[in-house]
Amino acid sequence: MLLPRPIHRAGMKALICLLATAAASAHAGPIPDELRASAAALRDSALEGSPAYDIVESLTMEIGPRLAGSPGDRAAVAWAVDKLRELGLENVRTQEVEVPQWERGTLEVTLSGTNPMQLAATSLGGSVGTRASGIEAEVVRVESLEDLQSRGAEQITGRIVFIDRRMERARDGSGYGRTVPIRLYGAREAAKLGARAVVIRSVGTSENRVPHTGTQIYDLSVRRIPAIALAAPDADLLAWRIATGETPSLRIRSTARQLPPTTSANVIGEIPGRVAPDEIVLLGAHLDSWDLGTGAIDDGAGVGIVAAAAHLIGRQDMAPRRTIRVVLFANEEFGLSGAREYRRMSDQELAAHIIGIEADFGAAPVWRFSSRVAPAALDLIAGIQELLAPLGIEYGNNEAGGGADLRPLRTGGMPVLSLSQDGTHYFDYHHTVNDTIDRIDREEINQNVAAYATAAWTAANLERDFGRLAVEPRESR
Amino acid sequence: MLLPRPIHRAGMKALICLLATAAASAHAGPIPDELRASAAALRDSALEGSPAYDIVESLTMEIGPRLAGSPGDRAAVAWAVDKLRELGLENVRTQEVEVPQWERGTLEVTLSGTNPMQLAATSLGGSVGTRASGIEAEVVRVESLEDLQSRGAEQITGRIVFIDRRMERARDGSGYGRTVPIRLYGAREAAKLGARAVVIRSVGTSENRVPHTGTQIYDLSVRRIPAIALAAPDADLLAWRIATGETPSLRIRSTARQLPPTTSANVIGEIPGRVAPDEIVLLGAHLDSWDLGTGAIDDGAGVGIVAAAAHLIGRQDMAPRRTIRVVLFANEEFGLSGAREYRRMSDQELAAHIIGIEADFGAAPVWRFSSRVAPAALDLIAGIQELLAPLGIEYGNNEAGGGADLRPLRTGGMPVLSLSQDGTHYFDYHHTVNDTIDRIDREEINQNVAAYATAAWTAANLERDFGRLAVEPRESR
Repeated sequence: MLLPRPIHRAGMKALICLLATAAASAHAGPIPDELRASAAALRDSALEGSPAYDIVESLTMEIGPRLAGSPGDRAAVAWAVDKLRELGLENVRTQEVEVPQWERGTLEVTLSGTNPMQLAATSLGGSVGTRASGIEAEVVRVESLEDLQSRGAEQITGRIVFIDRRMERARDGSGYGRTVPIRLYGAREAAKLGARAVVIRSVGTSENRVPHTGTQIYDLSVRRIPAIALAAPDADLLAWRIATGETPSLRIRSTARQLPPTTSANVIGEIPGRVAPDEIVLLGAHLDSWDLGTGAIDDGAGVGIVAAAAHLIGRQDMAPRRTIRVVLFANEEFGLSGAREYRRMSDQELAAHIIGIEADFGAAPVWRFSSRVAPAALDLIAGIQELLAPLGIEYGNNEAGGGADLRPLRTGGMPVLSLSQDGTHYFDYHHTVNDTIDRIDREEINQNVAAYATAAWTAANLERDFGRLAVEPRESR
Repeated sequence: MLLPRPIHRAGMKALICLLATAAASAHAGPIPDELRASAAALRDSALEGSPAYDIVESLTMEIGPRLAGSPGDRAAVAWAVDKLRELGLENVRTQEVEVPQWERGTLEVTLSGTNPMQLAATSLGGSVGTRASGIEAEVVRVESLEDLQSRGAEQITGRIVFIDRRMERARDGSGYGRTVPIRLYGAREAAKLGARAVVIRSVGTSENRVPHTGTQIYDLSVRRIPAIALAAPDADLLAWRIATGETPSLRIRSTARQLPPTTSANVIGEIPGRVAPDEIVLLGAHLDSWDLGTGAIDDGAGVGIVAAAAHLIGRQDMAPRRTIRVVLFANEEFGLSGAREYRRMSDQELAAHIIGIEADFGAAPVWRFSSRVAPAALDLIAGIQELLAPLGIEYGNNEAGGGADLRPLRTGGMPVLSLSQDGTHYFDYHHTVNDTIDRIDREEINQNVAAYATAAWTAANLERDFGRLAVEPRESR
């Protein structure tokens, strides 16, 4: 059920501030009346219905898991080309992308002892496996990366490190950012001190025995050790055994392995612009998913939202001034390969990307709108916020991240908008077997489509643009 | 959190009726004032605290899964002997029980096609496996056992039958009773029509990708075929494929197998009676569990409730008139072996079982009290109900089932009391990997202990008994 929320007080303050700025800048009514009316009508029609849910259902039920480089990934690329065409997008095409390839294989994690117990666990993305006979070692528990780093090698060498930190539930998903470094760097840091493997409490909020996967990053100068996540109840069990004075041992057998790189593709489709077809309003999502679930909230939802928004825009009486471009990125999960490939463009092409909007946080209602645009364009943002407010969306700030796949474009100067989905329950399902279509509600995803379509339509029909952001240095990774 | 509930209107009517019966039978105040006072004090002290939660925690965290005949089962018997002694019970002993032995092995269920998908599935208890290369066949969907039975063999022969029926959520767990025949008899009925395997939608209410196991029963005159449960989202997927016009095939590989019978044990302990030590008030639960979870709600909770109730009774200033006997039955799940073994007793011994109370439905608050006693003893039931009412417990009726492990005694004439736990969420976890200690709340389990201790203490201190029930014919199975 979609329950529109009252505009948050702090957001309202920020909005009033913006509107004051807008008034002061003498651009009274930065968004022309006619555009405001067509955007509002588009918004309301999206609430009435959109193909978003059916798109996600088709992707998850027909294709299912689509880990980069897997047969599902290849099937998804073909599916996406067909689907975007079917939705009326033009210039539908693929852009080849080299992607790394990793195979989860099988995993057994056993709490040793006279009465061994199997733990619910999964390998983290990119983890190496064990030798066929497995490894067995005593467990040493730490509470954070800092706690781990403070230990002497004599405490860690030859042992399995258990990093036991709970992720906090939050509407803005901020608990993830605070905990995910454990997943990303746990194996690397434990290996530096001589550990044989690392097991972490799942970086998620599920209380079910469904472990949470996600990428992790080795340091090539340090030995690569298996990296594994335990489901929350299994982490509880291990912590309980330690708290009651036991020194438990784990036996781990894993056939996870890296395979040679292979080919995937970004899938691109457009609603061509009427007046300035070379100017791009980019709607992004990623087509790949982790292999455990069927990638419904991560990121089938994003695919459904942006494809449906473009479809509804394509059905307007008149094409937008600028081109709306949908980019379904390859391999977000395991290294942002598609985003990096897409970024290989001339400065002129990059400059033609007027603004980008990404959907990669599920399909719960959008509750906050943030921007990162040039200060001179904040009156336009206030105008868009006015159109979004009836959806129960408050304004955040002008420091939007824009999303992982847009980051290479944003650091190259492209302004971004962030439409933040309610993340309270996102991490109950994200990166687990439970990421399936039944987590998505039709009315909620249509609220998302309304927000994305409204923002994209408005941005694509303005005569003004959003300026450029300061160019940031390219990341080494 | 314990939220005492108002006495249900229908229950109140039944109670008033009972009280009227009591008054009419001229036993004014069937429960002596002193006993009423001590029972109420015991009840209130249990609410303040009991060892129940810690007992379940110890059983699930130290021993874990304990499928009949497994190493965990043997460890649990030793654990229970120690635990009952530690709790101050006397005459702690084991009674050897022969139990069947079944091994789940590994299972892969794959939705075939150009892009195969792994389904979340588990073998049903006692299922045979497949040949090593597995089986693959088209799926035919039916909606019930009756629907299956109405099909011609030509529709079923050589195929995999998918029985797709949702279990309804209900406080009294009644949805289970209506759906579980599909699990019990699906394989048998499908095999009669020539099916190669049966897959059923899990008989549970979880929306997670955690399939639900439980026993199933072959007909020895019919070929035994693999019997498998799919998690709800995976059943949704299969149903969706069929609804969209596909004729899906499944590939199944299972190493499930029956092993030779082995030995387990009932574990028995007592608070000996002061006046009539040969008269037994039986508190029952079962020690075994399915192998997927750690058996917290099924039936660690029951073990904790009855052991804690006996412990609190043992700490009273005076021993009860009659003996309180705790029986932790072996192998309830896979054939009621312990209950059948316990029932092998003389008529005289059986007659000494004054009343039985079982705990085998989790640890959510008890909301209803039912009885099955001789009509002449209904005034006593009304008296006990009066003591239970402050716990938010309403009266049901005099047609209590008493529970699976007490059935052989009940059909032999022993009266029973049923204290019904709220089952609204029980089947979200029951018989799945998610049956772990974190599903249990300390305050809620203490409400249970209060109810069981109150009923047992009162029954054990009355001079009168509950009469006998009509003897029912012994079941063939």
